[in-house]
Amino acid sequence: MSSGYKTQTKDINVISGNIVAPEGFYAAGAHIGIKRKRKDLTLIKSEIPATAAGVFTLNAIKAPPVLWNQGHIHNKIRGIIINSGVANSCTGKTGTKNAELMAQIYAECINAHKDEVLVSSTGVIGVQLPMDKIEHGIKNLSPALDRTDESAENAALGILTTDKFIKEIAVEIEIGGKTVKIGAIAKGSGMIHPNMATMLAFITTDIDIDRDLLQKALKETVDDSYNMISIDGDTSTNDMVIVLANARAGNTPVNSENENYHKFKKALEHVNLYLAKQIIMDGEGATRFIEVEVKGTATKNDAKSIAKSIINSNLFKTAMFGADANWGRIMCAAGYSGVKFDYTKSSVGFSSNAGSFNTLTCGEPVGFDEDEALKILKEREIKVTLTLEEGGAQAAAWGCDLSYEYVRINGEYRT
Amino acid sequence: MSSGYKTQTKDINVISGNIVAPEGFYAAGAHIGIKRKRKDLTLIKSEIPATAAGVFTLNAIKAPPVLWNQGHIHNKIRGIIINSGVANSCTGKTGTKNAELMAQIYAECINAHKDEVLVSSTGVIGVQLPMDKIEHGIKNLSPALDRTDESAENAALGILTTDKFIKEIAVEIEIGGKTVKIGAIAKGSGMIHPNMATMLAFITTDIDIDRDLLQKALKETVDDSYNMISIDGDTSTNDMVIVLANARAGNTPVNSENENYHKFKKALEHVNLYLAKQIIMDGEGATRFIEVEVKGTATKNDAKSIAKSIINSNLFKTAMFGADANWGRIMCAAGYSGVKFDYTKSSVGFSSNAGSFNTLTCGEPVGFDEDEALKILKEREIKVTLTLEEGGAQAAAWGCDLSYEYVRINGEYRT
Repeated sequence: MSSGYKTQTKDINVISGNIVAPEGFYAAGAHIGIKRKRKDLTLIKSEIPATAAGVFTLNAIKAPPVLWNQGHIHNKIRGIIINSGVANSCTGKTGTKNAELMAQIYAECINAHKDEVLVSSTGVIGVQLPMDKIEHGIKNLSPALDRTDESAENAALGILTTDKFIKEIAVEIEIGGKTVKIGAIAKGSGMIHPNMATMLAFITTDIDIDRDLLQKALKETVDDSYNMISIDGDTSTNDMVIVLANARAGNTPVNSENENYHKFKKALEHVNLYLAKQIIMDGEGATRFIEVEVKGTATKNDAKSIAKSIINSNLFKTAMFGADANWGRIMCAAGYSGVKFDYTKSSVGFSSNAGSFNTLTCGEPVGFDEDEALKILKEREIKVTLTLEEGGAQAAAWGCDLSYEYVRINGEYRT
Repeated sequence: MSSGYKTQTKDINVISGNIVAPEGFYAAGAHIGIKRKRKDLTLIKSEIPATAAGVFTLNAIKAPPVLWNQGHIHNKIRGIIINSGVANSCTGKTGTKNAELMAQIYAECINAHKDEVLVSSTGVIGVQLPMDKIEHGIKNLSPALDRTDESAENAALGILTTDKFIKEIAVEIEIGGKTVKIGAIAKGSGMIHPNMATMLAFITTDIDIDRDLLQKALKETVDDSYNMISIDGDTSTNDMVIVLANARAGNTPVNSENENYHKFKKALEHVNLYLAKQIIMDGEGATRFIEVEVKGTATKNDAKSIAKSIINSNLFKTAMFGADANWGRIMCAAGYSGVKFDYTKSSVGFSSNAGSFNTLTCGEPVGFDEDEALKILKEREIKVTLTLEEGGAQAAAWGCDLSYEYVRINGEYRT
């Protein structure tokens, strides 16, 4: 099991770097007074207009920044402005104006047009943005846009809400003799229960790639990463993943689904999977990282549905918090996933760095040593494997346990 | 807002009574050693064969007792045997045999055939029933079957798991000059998160009614009661609601959907709604009873979907635990319910015995006094109203908050 460490993969070189690793990108972050103390404004800039692609929340209520971006994602983009602390969601007509105003103010600072700027907000719903602070903040922070590690770290900090650590990664690949880089930052779910996660990720890359292919690679890698910690359709009002590609690497343009496209897509998948797992690692109150692997289903979608049903079960999550091998809750959640299967042919096992044990084999419960099980489940990283006999497909989902701390954080969040 | 007190309703007389209130029914309950201390076996008997109807879990994994009952619910029924502590679910071939064996042992004790006995189990999944204790228990307890309040209370206790109090009610109505009674007991969700509730209810009545009509009345009243605290398809492996009607009231048989049918159905609805709300009141770790009312939707199903989405939101539930008027979480959950609506025309308000306040009016946030809001939300019973402008339908769902205590109970349940 990989818990998302920056492991090296064939053809993908994980480098020491961040959102400004790709050529031609600048970043900055600061505290401008939306939150009490922590940084709450992030600016990202491409020195030349970049091709953009995005994946947005499926929530019926889309916050004004989401709607703004959906209307502008097909444009060439010069920058992204993100604030944390206030989500600018359910904010009526004022909220719609404020999202546009944020784009306009930032655009002026970087000699761009507002239509070349994307906007993102995260935080409390239903509160208006303090536009005076934001205007001041943008104007003060723009001159600090830079390619240093410090400016990138500030940018990574500015998008966080209840996250305990920054989430960033940079990788490089070679395309036709040219080095192509990808850098990214993400904002944690802020919530342990994936179907209410507010999730943001911003990705920069200097690859030269066709827009439709960029969108396709993004969509597909998001489906197998963030969407396996966050259920389609069950997303917050502000979720988004955006990638900007400014072509500064000078590679032969990627215009078809050729070898180079797949190389890039694989690197993008590495980035997204790493950040998705980091988000879980930083789940509110999380004490355990859990991988649920479902094998032997008729289709990959079946495996995904079952894995997500299990990882979302409060009862399963509290059992994991208690290091309790209560595998019945796994079967119960699999059973109400909506996927039909013959449970009399299914098997369940747990594993961690401390060992492994089975609890169900072909539908029959098997005895296990409770002390040994406790030792295995007390590890920080736990893997659950459910094996069916319905076919050859499989999938994994990732999540964390449900702890007292989760209740504390979310009972007090707004106040 | 009614939190489920035994309020009198026109034509429905709530009487001091229980599962043995209807003529010809007997009950008993005892501790037989499945659980450590609390009662864990309940017997219900009808002195003459009764017409039976049932609603069962939609979970793909159905515990052996559920499968047994589905195969026998069309028979005339003499008794129901229920154990708590072990769910007899995911127990392979042994579990299937044990469910049948329970029916057989009890049938012999009451001079019935095993095909005239229904079976129910609740508790831990994946553990085999201690059949020696159960056989002994049934044989020892059967002679205690009685129509006293004490025997009925023991029966109400025997079906509980983590419930803190028994749930029972009895009502009477008049049908063509004859008094018809309904008595019922229920087992609490045991879990605060409705979509994983294990819910049992057993209803007795002395009405003379056609089986198909009994099934119809049960199904429809379950949909508006238990199913508004428990999502269709997202039920445990053991959920069931069973009603036995033994015709001892001597009323003119109810053979069509006439006035008498509707009178009975209304009384049955009263019983089921009362028990459903009692289940919420007893939710694990619950400190607040919450009613979510959704108005102004195109269809009743839309209102139900939105109300259930809100009441199931961990973030909303933790906010309620913290007495935090974080109405954004209500909008967010409504938004991912799958129902499309124009949020710019929606309104949100909170109320309790201490007063009421609005937070959103026609899509625009409205200011409210935080101190006043805190006072209102610190009450034990809270009502949330979401009003849309999509049509004239409405529905309500009921739930409770998510507390530290929930995590404690469910992190330690099996051990």
